[in-house]
Amino acid sequence: MVHHVNFTPGPSQLYFTVADHARQAFKENIPSLSHRSKLFEQISSETTGGLRQLLGIPASHHIFFTGSATEVWERIIQNLVAESSFHLVNGSFSKKFYETAVQLNKKPQKLEVKEGLGFDPQISIPQGTELIAVTHNETSTGVSLPLETIYALKENNPHALVAVDAVSSLPYPQFDFTKLDSVFFSVQKGFGLPAGLGVWIVNEKCIAKADQLLSKGFSIGSYHNIPSLKVHAVKNQTPETPNVLGIYLLNKVVQDFLRRGIDTIRKETDYKAAILYQALEQHPLLSAFVQEKKFQSRTVIVADCQSHTEKATAFLQQKGLYPGDGYGPSKKTQLRFANFPAHSKEQYELLVDSLLEFRI
Amino acid sequence: MVHHVNFTPGPSQLYFTVADHARQAFKENIPSLSHRSKLFEQISSETTGGLRQLLGIPASHHIFFTGSATEVWERIIQNLVAESSFHLVNGSFSKKFYETAVQLNKKPQKLEVKEGLGFDPQISIPQGTELIAVTHNETSTGVSLPLETIYALKENNPHALVAVDAVSSLPYPQFDFTKLDSVFFSVQKGFGLPAGLGVWIVNEKCIAKADQLLSKGFSIGSYHNIPSLKVHAVKNQTPETPNVLGIYLLNKVVQDFLRRGIDTIRKETDYKAAILYQALEQHPLLSAFVQEKKFQSRTVIVADCQSHTEKATAFLQQKGLYPGDGYGPSKKTQLRFANFPAHSKEQYELLVDSLLEFRI
Repeated sequence: MVHHVNFTPGPSQLYFTVADHARQAFKENIPSLSHRSKLFEQISSETTGGLRQLLGIPASHHIFFTGSATEVWERIIQNLVAESSFHLVNGSFSKKFYETAVQLNKKPQKLEVKEGLGFDPQISIPQGTELIAVTHNETSTGVSLPLETIYALKENNPHALVAVDAVSSLPYPQFDFTKLDSVFFSVQKGFGLPAGLGVWIVNEKCIAKADQLLSKGFSIGSYHNIPSLKVHAVKNQTPETPNVLGIYLLNKVVQDFLRRGIDTIRKETDYKAAILYQALEQHPLLSAFVQEKKFQSRTVIVADCQSHTEKATAFLQQKGLYPGDGYGPSKKTQLRFANFPAHSKEQYELLVDSLLEFRI
Repeated sequence: MVHHVNFTPGPSQLYFTVADHARQAFKENIPSLSHRSKLFEQISSETTGGLRQLLGIPASHHIFFTGSATEVWERIIQNLVAESSFHLVNGSFSKKFYETAVQLNKKPQKLEVKEGLGFDPQISIPQGTELIAVTHNETSTGVSLPLETIYALKENNPHALVAVDAVSSLPYPQFDFTKLDSVFFSVQKGFGLPAGLGVWIVNEKCIAKADQLLSKGFSIGSYHNIPSLKVHAVKNQTPETPNVLGIYLLNKVVQDFLRRGIDTIRKETDYKAAILYQALEQHPLLSAFVQEKKFQSRTVIVADCQSHTEKATAFLQQKGLYPGDGYGPSKKTQLRFANFPAHSKEQYELLVDSLLEFRI
C-alpha cells in the first residue's frame, strides 16, 4: 500500500493501533458478542472507566453511547429543552445544532457571527434560556473557543444548562467538567476510530431536566431518552444492540492513549499546531484562515489558499499527504488539516516542510 | 481458538467471510474514508443495489441506513403517524414497538395475544388507523407470521400504511414489497455482521406521509427524518457520518449471498429448520415452544426445555454449540436457536445430533 496520511477532519486518519485491535476483536468473536453478556458489560465498563481517567470526567457525570454526534444534537434538544435553547453559531456545525432545535419544534435563539470568528466571554443570553449550546471547535472553520469563554457562559447563566459540542477537539481539551452540564463527541475524529459511535456525557442536572420534561408530558424520545440511557448505563449496558465492535475499539484506543499519556498527547498537539501555524504565517501564498490567535483551533487548522487551493492539494497528495477540503462554500479556497493523536510529529513535520516547499 | 458456534439470535454468528472482508477494509483505508467522497457513494450505491437484487426491492422503495432497528421503530412513529398506529403484539419486541409510540406521545392501539401465538389474517383494525405495525418474526418467542397474513392487513386496510419489522427474518422471507409500505432490519442477525447498522426501506406513500406531517407542523425528527434521509439517499449519501465500515461489510456479505444464491440460502434455511423441529418433536425432554406449525419461525427456533434448560445448555456448550437463552421471563425454561445463513447445514446437523443425544 502507498504511504497515505489522511488529514481530513473526520473520518480522519485511523490511530495506528486500530487495525490490530480490530483483528484481535474478530479473533475473540467480539462482533458476535451479545450486548446482554457479562463480557460486554465488562468492556463497556472499561471503556467508560478509561474515558473518565483520560478526560477527567467526574462521577457526577454519566457516559452514554449513541450512533453519532449528530444524534446527540437531537437527543440534547429532546431531553433538555422544553422551548428555549440558545446557540452560539459561527459555522456550519453550530448552525446545524441550532437547526435541529427548529426541526424539533422548539423556539431556539442564536447569536451568529461570521465564519472564522469566535465569541467574547460576556455574551448576553436571554432570560429564561434553558440550554446554551456551544461548539468548542467549529470543524467547518477551525475556530476554537477558549475554555474560559465556555465556563463564563455557565457562571453568568447559572439557571441554564451548558452543552458543549467537542466533536473535533477531544481528547485535546482539558475540560473542567464541573463547569459543564453536557459534552459530546464522535469517535472518528480525535480518537482515530471507524465512524458509527457517539459518546454523550451528562451530569445530574441533565437527568433531572429530562425527568422534569417527561413528568410534564413532553415526549423526550424513546430508547435513547436520558432515563432509558441512564437505567442501562448504570448496568454498563445500552438500550438497543449497540455498535459493540466500536465500543471495544474505543476502549482499546483509550487504553493506548492512557499508556502514551494525555499530557504527552496534548503537548504534541500543541507542537504540531504551532509548526503548522508558523508555516502558514511565513508562507507567501497561504495563510491561516482564523486570524485571531486565541480562536485558532489546535485540532482543526484551516489554511486560506484562495486560487492556489487545487494546486496545493495536488502538490501535497503527490507526497502522500491528503488535506481535507474547505467546508461547503470554502471548498475551492481553503484546506483543512486535522491535528489528532493519530497524526504523528513526523507526519506533521513532513506536512510543514512540504507546504513550505509549495510555490506556484 | 476453540470451535464455537453462536446460535444466539443476535448479535449472532458472523458470516464466515466477514473477518476477511474487515481485514481488507482496513487495508483499503475504508474506516477513514470520507462519507462525502465518491468512493463512499459508490460503496453505498453497490450496497443498496445488491440489497434490491437479493431481496427483490423495487425502484418504488427507498433504502436508508440508520444506527439500529430500534432507531427505526422511533423514526417510523415520528414520520408516519400523527396519532393512531395499531400494533400486533405477540412478544417483547412487538410490544416495544408499541411502547415507542406511547413514548412519542401518540395514541397507539394494540391487539395482544399470548407469547407463542400468531394472528389470523382477518384482524379488525380500527377505522382511521394510519399505520399498522407488524413483527414478521418475533425474536423473543420464535413466532413467524405467514406472509399472507401480512399482505391481508394491507388489502383489508388500504388507507393504512403497513410497516414490517423483519429484524430476525431477512434475508429469508421473499416479500412482495408492492404489498408493504415499509420494512426494516438490522445487520447483526440474518446478515451475520457486526451490530451498529439498521436498514430502513420505505415506499413513496411513506415519503408523502412524512411530507404531509411536516407541512401540518408536526416534528418528524431532524437528521434522520424521511425527507432528510431521502435527499441524501438519492445521492448515495447519509445525513450524518454513518457506520462506513458497517455499510462496506454489508455490501460484501450481500455480494457473497448473491453468489451463493438466495434460493439456495432459503432452501438451506428450510432444511435446517425442518431437522431441528423434527428433533424437538421426537425428543423426550424438549419440545417446540410454538405449537402451531404455520407460526413456527424458520429463522429463530425456540425450544421449550423447562427444568432441563440449564443442563441442555451445558451439554451443548461442551460441544462448542452456544444456544441463546430464552427471552426475558423464559430465560430459565427456553432456549433459542438462530437459523441464519451464517449457520451451516453441517453445524445444524451437529446441533440436532447433539440435542438428540441429550438426556438427563
